[in-house]
Amino acid sequence: GTGADNDLYINQAIVFIEDAIQYRSINHRVDSKSLWLYRWYYSRTCQWILSLTITLILALAFIEKPSSLTLTSDVRYRLPAWNPPCGLTESIELLCFLVFVVDVSVKSYLIGWEEFWKNKWLMAYILTLVVSLTDWMVSLSFFCTEVVRVRRILRPFFLLQNSSMMKKTLKSINSTLPEMASVVLLLAVHLSLFTMFAMLLFARTKDGQQDKEWVKYFRNLPDSLTSLLVLLTTANNPDVMIPAYSKNRAYSIFFILFTVLGNLFLMNLLTAIIYNQFRGYLLKSVQSSLFRRRLGIRAAFEVLSSLRETPANAQQSYVSVGALLQVLQKAEMDSRCKQAIMRSLKMCSYDQLSATQFQKLFEELDKDAIKQHPPSPEYQSHFMQKMQFAFGHPYFGYLGNVVALANIISICVVLVLDADKQPSERDDFFLGAINCFFILYYLLEMLLKILAMGLKRYLSYPSNRFDGLLTVILLVLEISTFAVYGFPHPGWRPEFMGLLSLWDMVRLVNMLIVFRFLRIIPNMKFMALVVTTLLDLVKNLRAFAGILVVVFYAFAITGIMLFQGAAVPLGNARITAHCSVAPTNSWSIGQTTLMILLFFQAHFIYCLLHLLFLLTVNLICRWAKIYFVAWWLISSVIWVNLFVALLLENFIHKWDRRCHPESLSDIEYQRTVELMFRDVLEEPTEEELMEKLHQHPHLQLCR
Amino acid sequence: GTGADNDLYINQAIVFIEDAIQYRSINHRVDSKSLWLYRWYYSRTCQWILSLTITLILALAFIEKPSSLTLTSDVRYRLPAWNPPCGLTESIELLCFLVFVVDVSVKSYLIGWEEFWKNKWLMAYILTLVVSLTDWMVSLSFFCTEVVRVRRILRPFFLLQNSSMMKKTLKSINSTLPEMASVVLLLAVHLSLFTMFAMLLFARTKDGQQDKEWVKYFRNLPDSLTSLLVLLTTANNPDVMIPAYSKNRAYSIFFILFTVLGNLFLMNLLTAIIYNQFRGYLLKSVQSSLFRRRLGIRAAFEVLSSLRETPANAQQSYVSVGALLQVLQKAEMDSRCKQAIMRSLKMCSYDQLSATQFQKLFEELDKDAIKQHPPSPEYQSHFMQKMQFAFGHPYFGYLGNVVALANIISICVVLVLDADKQPSERDDFFLGAINCFFILYYLLEMLLKILAMGLKRYLSYPSNRFDGLLTVILLVLEISTFAVYGFPHPGWRPEFMGLLSLWDMVRLVNMLIVFRFLRIIPNMKFMALVVTTLLDLVKNLRAFAGILVVVFYAFAITGIMLFQGAAVPLGNARITAHCSVAPTNSWSIGQTTLMILLFFQAHFIYCLLHLLFLLTVNLICRWAKIYFVAWWLISSVIWVNLFVALLLENFIHKWDRRCHPESLSDIEYQRTVELMFRDVLEEPTEEELMEKLHQHPHLQLCR
Repeated sequence: GTGADNDLYINQAIVFIEDAIQYRSINHRVDSKSLWLYRWYYSRTCQWILSLTITLILALAFIEKPSSLTLTSDVRYRLPAWNPPCGLTESIELLCFLVFVVDVSVKSYLIGWEEFWKNKWLMAYILTLVVSLTDWMVSLSFFCTEVVRVRRILRPFFLLQNSSMMKKTLKSINSTLPEMASVVLLLAVHLSLFTMFAMLLFARTKDGQQDKEWVKYFRNLPDSLTSLLVLLTTANNPDVMIPAYSKNRAYSIFFILFTVLGNLFLMNLLTAIIYNQFRGYLLKSVQSSLFRRRLGIRAAFEVLSSLRETPANAQQSYVSVGALLQVLQKAEMDSRCKQAIMRSLKMCSYDQLSATQFQKLFEELDKDAIKQHPPSPEYQSHFMQKMQFAFGHPYFGYLGNVVALANIISICVVLVLDADKQPSERDDFFLGAINCFFILYYLLEMLLKILAMGLKRYLSYPSNRFDGLLTVILLVLEISTFAVYGFPHPGWRPEFMGLLSLWDMVRLVNMLIVFRFLRIIPNMKFMALVVTTLLDLVKNLRAFAGILVVVFYAFAITGIMLFQGAAVPLGNARITAHCSVAPTNSWSIGQTTLMILLFFQAHFIYCLLHLLFLLTVNLICRWAKIYFVAWWLISSVIWVNLFVALLLENFIHKWDRRCHPESLSDIEYQRTVELMFRDVLEEPTEEELMEKLHQHPHLQLCR
Repeated sequence: GTGADNDLYINQAIVFIEDAIQYRSINHRVDSKSLWLYRWYYSRTCQWILSLTITLILALAFIEKPSSLTLTSDVRYRLPAWNPPCGLTESIELLCFLVFVVDVSVKSYLIGWEEFWKNKWLMAYILTLVVSLTDWMVSLSFFCTEVVRVRRILRPFFLLQNSSMMKKTLKSINSTLPEMASVVLLLAVHLSLFTMFAMLLFARTKDGQQDKEWVKYFRNLPDSLTSLLVLLTTANNPDVMIPAYSKNRAYSIFFILFTVLGNLFLMNLLTAIIYNQFRGYLLKSVQSSLFRRRLGIRAAFEVLSSLRETPANAQQSYVSVGALLQVLQKAEMDSRCKQAIMRSLKMCSYDQLSATQFQKLFEELDKDAIKQHPPSPEYQSHFMQKMQFAFGHPYFGYLGNVVALANIISICVVLVLDADKQPSERDDFFLGAINCFFILYYLLEMLLKILAMGLKRYLSYPSNRFDGLLTVILLVLEISTFAVYGFPHPGWRPEFMGLLSLWDMVRLVNMLIVFRFLRIIPNMKFMALVVTTLLDLVKNLRAFAGILVVVFYAFAITGIMLFQGAAVPLGNARITAHCSVAPTNSWSIGQTTLMILLFFQAHFIYCLLHLLFLLTVNLICRWAKIYFVAWWLISSVIWVNLFVALLLENFIHKWDRRCHPESLSDIEYQRTVELMFRDVLEEPTEEELMEKLHQHPHLQLCR
């Protein structure tokens, strides 16, 4: 019937507009039931459950068997880690798998059979699930005593496939791979030629005293290769050349050439290549998001224009304002945007909208939310007005900064004075009294500012929120100190009471005071620029960070599987000396990676290189070497370079904008990536949109 | 008289054209005598003498008193360095100073009195000379036993002031300094806040067992600052966090935050800033060179147009072809260009040239010299033609590459097999016989190629020259081996004879064979791109390298002066263990820098950091710390970033051009920086040129 048809069109329009808002593809089924399923699948609850499931399955590694999640990493003081009974983690896993099965079924159904065959990600998803479930059954049938658990390595895939940003980024990284491979090939050629040179240069001599270099670093091909590879990472930098250098200074030329060519030139070439490739990456991704948004809105227009109530006589198609209002009321979107669109819809005089007018209405979505600070209260009394002027003035803020600086300096002076004193000799009175005074000033400053600005306006500034929160925490700490240990007086050295000792309390207060000093950041222009760049970068880096997590997770699990128990004969003392990250019996490098090193590669790399270096001596396992080299290449070389490339891109863009007077003004910084590139984005043409719409696999347009 | 005037004009034109060719400024005196002096000053001999003098005075440091220029750096085997008698280096210095005095006088005279007062470089030059000469006299009056020699630190200034490129680059670096200073300030804030945190976090506890971190790294303010500063360079990376980490894993968060913020973010910010600043640097410098060239040519045109023989009636000024021919014959320029200009001058039908025509004639100077390879010989015999086709074909070259690869592999196999054999067990027969065969093949390949291409054409390719030279050297080595040790036979293990032992001869041959393998580079497109970028970079980096030499020299001399004898109590063993670069009694770090480390910073930095680390324990000298930190900041951080910036600039430019089909073709690569930017350069307008000409301090134009 016509009514049912109209309802369908309205529903389609709602979903298309929601797609546009979320930058989603519109290529899904559009019949009534599918639309209901689609809205259900993309509802907040469902997506939240899915995210929770992914987090859960990834977090399982922390409590699974070869786990070293204990407070201290020192074997002597460490309690044995908790070992979950067989079946506990497995049942959690099964639950997660069931959620994933539902997820993949719904996804596959929604995009339709034909599209499904073209979508490699979905196929891989199904394959992963099948392998995981099989492995799970094998695991249960062995009562959790099986050696290898393949499904663990596959886990990060669930994270990867759930984010379209990550998939896009991966595609982008993938397209850089050929060029990166060329440089890596060059590095390999460089390495092998120099290895041959080295083996010829530092050959064994008949005089046993003269060939220290040979004995230590160039004994055979694997040794030489490793020595030079480690030199490429500068980890063994002067050591490797010292024996030769002390024999004849001219030998240093060999090492100089190797380092200059390999480190200074080839490594930076990698940076250049990655930077060059990713220069346009952000722009391109923003451009395709814009296209998706315009396409969703256009699709909504097209389905609404086929409603029966529209007169069919016009050449151009039109949409009635009433239908759009109906759609808007049901669509889920930001309330500010919704109200703005409704308002302009009511203001317009005609009741038919053309495609251009329709698009224009939704441009509100692209707009920056200019944050309006609430007004200051208006006081009647003359005295209060003067107070308001004085304490609302920026100079009062600067005074606060100066006081905070004075506090920091006083803490610093006390620290220097107390540096060599025994803890028993320390007099906590001075610092206690000083901090008490300063915290009172901070409280006063906060209250006066609230008086001058009003609570709402005060809280609308992030710097004030930061400031106020820390002041309140400091006050609470100070009051509880007094409550437990009494007021400070000379020779104030009470015994340990309550949760923390007085000394710990004072330390905590001091740390918070140092932390509070960061409030000066917005007052320094260059610092503010740097910090906003940092924040932007973090936003843009989410996809990269996700991929990094995936890579680290896979490496960690592989590491656990490879080295579990294999390294016991190495001896703890030796490893502890070189790299105390993993002084455990089971040498759970992977676990350690997972735990602390997700974002702290430099340390891990260093450790690995030390271990790598050890391994060449001990020759436990050839696989370990390959594993470490792969780890180094992927995590250090490529990821750090990606980071540098994005930083350059972001920073240079910001820097160029800084010349425009309107930027870096007092307006709160609320720009998204989309807005940053607004002036260079290209609007898709009508033809492109319509062509794409006609290619839609499920939507049959009337014309 | 008129004749004398005409001669003057002709001479002026000659000098202006020579200025244009050399991209020199034309703001010098233009009377007859000054012109003669100017041409004499810029003659090759004079400039060569000046360069020699600069090299000489800089090289003096290698033989002066605290020198450690010996073959081995090991104190045990080392002979005492030669100590020149008092007066020897001093008289060489005086000679150099005299040359500089002449140089500065001529320069000052040529630019004229008024310009002299505006030229800060010349004033600084004179000041430097006065200080140096005074110091020299003090030195002589103490019979070379004075403690401090100020003039040594001033020496690199002579290098700096002689190169306009360096002065320009320095100006450019100077303009980046404010922004770099901001980042360094941020780094300082970062460092000091984290130092305070660390001191509060890792404070001394009452339990002596628990505060290992405090004892080792955070005992007092200077210790803490140093620990974190060294962490910023990643030199003490995992070590510094191990005691805290083994107490509680959560402490690693502190170190992670510090490293991520400082190392990954702030350090890369420096790269971004420097890259951003130097993005336009090359283009700007090429643009100003172009302006100088056009200005010189225009000036020549203007003076030639005021020759009496020109008819004065025309509104436009003209230059007669005859006068130009006269000028061209006397001017010193590239003979190819001169001939090309003469040719086009003779071909043109009119005998008066307008300004535009005049400029156009000299555009030949900007043009690329397209290298024409001489033709192959044309053989009559059918057999020879077939031979020529076969051995002139690229496939024959590829076959040569394959053979070279086979040779490399055979050497590699022998090396691996012989790795663990005693030198006495080694059988040199196999490798000897194989190399003999391969070298014969190389000889044959060279001869056949010469046959096919003709000697001239063969030598016109750089890859063939490289190939041929190495083949000839290999042949000579092989023949001399046979002459001394006879032909190879099984069990060929002769005694030591002649200059080198058989084993050394074989090693040398093998090294040359490995080196010869680099002939594959032009055959791999990506490698060729990388190598040409490298070569371009070296060209563009000359100015930077010069500044680097200046900085290193100053640092080295300062180091010698600061630490001469001061570090003796440190004990050799300790220093040798950490950094064997300077295991000498006089600890001549500066000397060592000068000698091997001009272009090998990574090593030196590492050493210095080790030493720095030691110094914090030993606390010899506060100056040393400041010296090392300054050294690290300038040489490692700033210079490496400059290098990366230039590499990015060069490489990205190249990479973008690669898309154009004509580039990377078979045409020999002979582009200069000027040509690389030709399509983006702006031609100066007539008005700009004339305005600049009218500002000339010495040239009065008629109109």
